[in-house]
Amino acid sequence: MTLETYLHEHIPLSKAMGVKVVSASPEQVILSAPLANNINHKQTAFGGSLHALATLSCWSLLHLHFPACQIVIAHSEIDYLIPVTTEFTAQCSMPNLQDWDRFQYTLAKKGKARIVLTATVLSEGRTYVTFTGTFVAIN
Amino acid sequence: MTLETYLHEHIPLSKAMGVKVVSASPEQVILSAPLANNINHKQTAFGGSLHALATLSCWSLLHLHFPACQIVIAHSEIDYLIPVTTEFTAQCSMPNLQDWDRFQYTLAKKGKARIVLTATVLSEGRTYVTFTGTFVAIN
Repeated sequence: MTLETYLHEHIPLSKAMGVKVVSASPEQVILSAPLANNINHKQTAFGGSLHALATLSCWSLLHLHFPACQIVIAHSEIDYLIPVTTEFTAQCSMPNLQDWDRFQYTLAKKGKARIVLTATVLSEGRTYVTFTGTFVAIN
Repeated sequence: MTLETYLHEHIPLSKAMGVKVVSASPEQVILSAPLANNINHKQTAFGGSLHALATLSCWSLLHLHFPACQIVIAHSEIDYLIPVTTEFTAQCSMPNLQDWDRFQYTLAKKGKARIVLTATVLSEGRTYVTFTGTFVAIN
């Protein structure tokens, strides 16, 4: 099953948002969503949609690494820098190797570990939103 | 136009989420959403949906006070305390009077002001999620 199919089947709101997987590798996940499904009263992207796409990009990166783990979000912070007026993408890349190694070590040793990931919402090459999420993986 | 109709018409994702207005007054806004529309791969409420409902409850409280203002979200933080396994509500109440008075004064004087609001996601009387959002109102 592709990541896009998985998201649409298991998280129906991602289908309602029109989420598409632009690219997905262990190094980076990029998801996109059209403006129409996610528009607000100001004809810009709804803040809830921007947060949801960023969350899904981080969740997906962890899911690709640990498909058998439960992965849940514990905390997030988001800054809305510029209103989004077009289709947009959320991009999550690997954290620094030291944090990642500690996360993997703790997960293997204790069966549970948490990691902080960041995502950016981009549109036409500009950063519109920055997102930081703390995720917990459980073996 | 009722608040619920306004949300569904102007923010289509709120309709996809099945958002309902439980109560809406200048003192407090309570919105609800069913689990089915907002479910995730673990059969609990998707973190993006919880964030979106909390955002909408705060936005709605400000919209009821200042229907002619543009109200946008600038920043938010959210803590997911307990997984939500049923229909859920997000509740936003008025901030303390000192902050509110300063917000109103600045908005009247400068045509733009920001305020921090909090919301809680509740289900069957328990707090599942706490949300803090910084909103900007523009006259």
